[in-house]
Amino acid sequence: MNIQDIIAKKRDKQELSKEEIEYFITNYTNGNILDYQAAALVMAIYLNGMTETETTNLTLAMAHSGDILDLSELGIVVDKHSTGGIGDKVTLILAPIIASFGVPVAKMSGRGLGYTGGTIDKLESIPGYKTNLSVEQFIKNVKENGICVMGQTLNLDPADKKIYALRDSISATESIPLISSSIMSKKIAAGANKIVLDVTCGSGAFMKNIDEAINLAQMMKKIGTLANKETICIITNMEEPLGKAVGNYLEVIEALEFLKGNMNEDVKQVILELGAYMLKLAKKGDDINVNKQNILESVKSGKAYQKFKLWIKSQGGDISYLENKENCQRAKYIIEVKADTQGYVTSLDARKVGEISMRLGAGRIKKEDIIDQTVGVILEKKIGDKVQENDVLAYIYANDEKIGNDEAKALKEVYEIKQEIVNAKNNILKII
Amino acid sequence: MNIQDIIAKKRDKQELSKEEIEYFITNYTNGNILDYQAAALVMAIYLNGMTETETTNLTLAMAHSGDILDLSELGIVVDKHSTGGIGDKVTLILAPIIASFGVPVAKMSGRGLGYTGGTIDKLESIPGYKTNLSVEQFIKNVKENGICVMGQTLNLDPADKKIYALRDSISATESIPLISSSIMSKKIAAGANKIVLDVTCGSGAFMKNIDEAINLAQMMKKIGTLANKETICIITNMEEPLGKAVGNYLEVIEALEFLKGNMNEDVKQVILELGAYMLKLAKKGDDINVNKQNILESVKSGKAYQKFKLWIKSQGGDISYLENKENCQRAKYIIEVKADTQGYVTSLDARKVGEISMRLGAGRIKKEDIIDQTVGVILEKKIGDKVQENDVLAYIYANDEKIGNDEAKALKEVYEIKQEIVNAKNNILKII
Repeated sequence: MNIQDIIAKKRDKQELSKEEIEYFITNYTNGNILDYQAAALVMAIYLNGMTETETTNLTLAMAHSGDILDLSELGIVVDKHSTGGIGDKVTLILAPIIASFGVPVAKMSGRGLGYTGGTIDKLESIPGYKTNLSVEQFIKNVKENGICVMGQTLNLDPADKKIYALRDSISATESIPLISSSIMSKKIAAGANKIVLDVTCGSGAFMKNIDEAINLAQMMKKIGTLANKETICIITNMEEPLGKAVGNYLEVIEALEFLKGNMNEDVKQVILELGAYMLKLAKKGDDINVNKQNILESVKSGKAYQKFKLWIKSQGGDISYLENKENCQRAKYIIEVKADTQGYVTSLDARKVGEISMRLGAGRIKKEDIIDQTVGVILEKKIGDKVQENDVLAYIYANDEKIGNDEAKALKEVYEIKQEIVNAKNNILKII
Repeated sequence: MNIQDIIAKKRDKQELSKEEIEYFITNYTNGNILDYQAAALVMAIYLNGMTETETTNLTLAMAHSGDILDLSELGIVVDKHSTGGIGDKVTLILAPIIASFGVPVAKMSGRGLGYTGGTIDKLESIPGYKTNLSVEQFIKNVKENGICVMGQTLNLDPADKKIYALRDSISATESIPLISSSIMSKKIAAGANKIVLDVTCGSGAFMKNIDEAINLAQMMKKIGTLANKETICIITNMEEPLGKAVGNYLEVIEALEFLKGNMNEDVKQVILELGAYMLKLAKKGDDINVNKQNILESVKSGKAYQKFKLWIKSQGGDISYLENKENCQRAKYIIEVKADTQGYVTSLDARKVGEISMRLGAGRIKKEDIIDQTVGVILEKKIGDKVQENDVLAYIYANDEKIGNDEAKALKEVYEIKQEIVNAKNNILKII
């Protein structure tokens, strides 16, 4: 077997065998296959596609390219993953909710490249929170408290790291087989038995329209089935950012408020839907509507918030700091963005808000970039909201006055305000 | 401008602009664009193709990626190139013939990768022949003797060298835009005003069938027109090897015999056709049939052979060595391949004969390999020839007895001998 023949096969639209895919992943991971050969194969996959079987074999080969986290002693572990969006604080909220039902939450999360940080970056905005635990400590925490969320300390899915970076540098990101194998291989390597996927759709997501999102969801569900990992995909709206906060620490505060019962409607929809399916997969109830009621009850009773505090504390985080409202205003400059007309918000492009957050310093372009935990955007008005002249549309949180003012102007441009009444979109687009 | 956007454009089947193609070639040649990015673009070009305009722009950008040989002081220089074949000694014969008409022959030739060496390798089998001249000496030789053939001392077309090696390692060789730009850019960089291309077709060639060969020929002719380099393509048969000899020194001897008037029919057809068009482009006669008669006359009168001797001598080659027939039997073992049945030769697969020649040591797999000048194959019987039992079909020239015997057996297998009478194919398939 050699890589030239494998490239030629995919180039000629033939199906690669399991052995050929494993040969590629093994030898690319260990450096025997070079970047330029992998680039040619990845471009051929991008252009000629892969069957479900090929994509599943690719996923499994990638998952096994490094360590596999063994969570078997914890019972059924249901993992949750989002394909990425703006203002996505879902994990921060859902993890303690699910744990409050006695379902073990053992999550290795990543840092983010893009508009804001990843879950691990957001958690690091809490003073004292340790993301760097040993696997033993990680499992001990889950056993004791039912929940632990840490950074990647194992060598999980090194093939994905190489292929992901390569795809980015050769314009081969938006490919269903490549996106789905990247996501599913990481989940499998991270020890999940069952997986609920939040497939975001809209300007702030990889998938720009519902058809693409459905294709991706169907492929990932199929991989889950073939890999014996029960998988549910929930396609959610990402035309505008999720919730009010975009930015690392600001999102932590929004998550905390949610758990205290102050729930923004769009976040609530997503939390209830994802959470209800996670409980179902964890055998905590078959009826989705009942599960949703139970989740609301867990929030209202304070159980979910208690679990949140236990979790953060058990990993060294300072809860009192979080609970002091003054501390959420840590950025030096908080700049109002005001409406200069009245009407209804008809559009608030998620990607553009993400770019503003990035320019304020909340995101990373390169892996080495340091993110600013305190900056970001608070959106006071969202699609469908009525606006009077001079109403505050949003706040910019900045540590540089000039950048803050520039981005305040930019954010004002992102708000489309028209006379027509527009209803907020349902945030749950499809369950697959 | 950046390479990611250029890759994405070709990935999405859009036409690249002149500036984008020049950006790619300049920055790939100087190392700013990396191999894996070039690999992705090359695969996208392979799969999505290029328009004639794109291919011409690619050709010109490649031609200008390094030095351009300036032959303007020599007048009209007609270059000749073959897309490669087995037993192709055409340049060795045609160069002195054309020079005998007072048309300057100033040729920078390459070494070969593959079944036998390139023209420069073949010439180096003549004791004393110097391939490494300065450009000044090269031009001086052409002015004095009308002919000079040397190796590449200038940095001609470095972009082609990189892309050619890359294509080979990522299975992206058989692509009309990539093959045609590779050939044409080298010819333009080597200073040709007018070009006659021998587009080989059949098992021993890149182009396996006539339709592919026509596509390639049309593309190269179009590039020639757009680049203002008059170009004629002659599609020739490469189902069986050309002539009798396959192997470096053996081919030199066959060329010498041709120039003495001992012409094998298939070689003669190709020489007359290519030569007649070269003379036409050089304004030495518009009538192809008259030109062919004149070429035969040049051979019969000895003028072409005199020019050959002058050429070889002027570059230090030992003519007396060549003329001593004993010296053509330089290999240690000369092994007969005999027929064990009677009938007619119906097939003699060029590629398989090439592989035998390679295994005997006449060719190179890697650039660093040293070729054996003395080994190869002499084909006594070719397609259409009548064969009696025990007739000698061919001779193997080997320096290792075991390899020689093995390859003699292999060559016997390549000969298909049947009862039906098969006519030798016309070697000129189409003029474009």
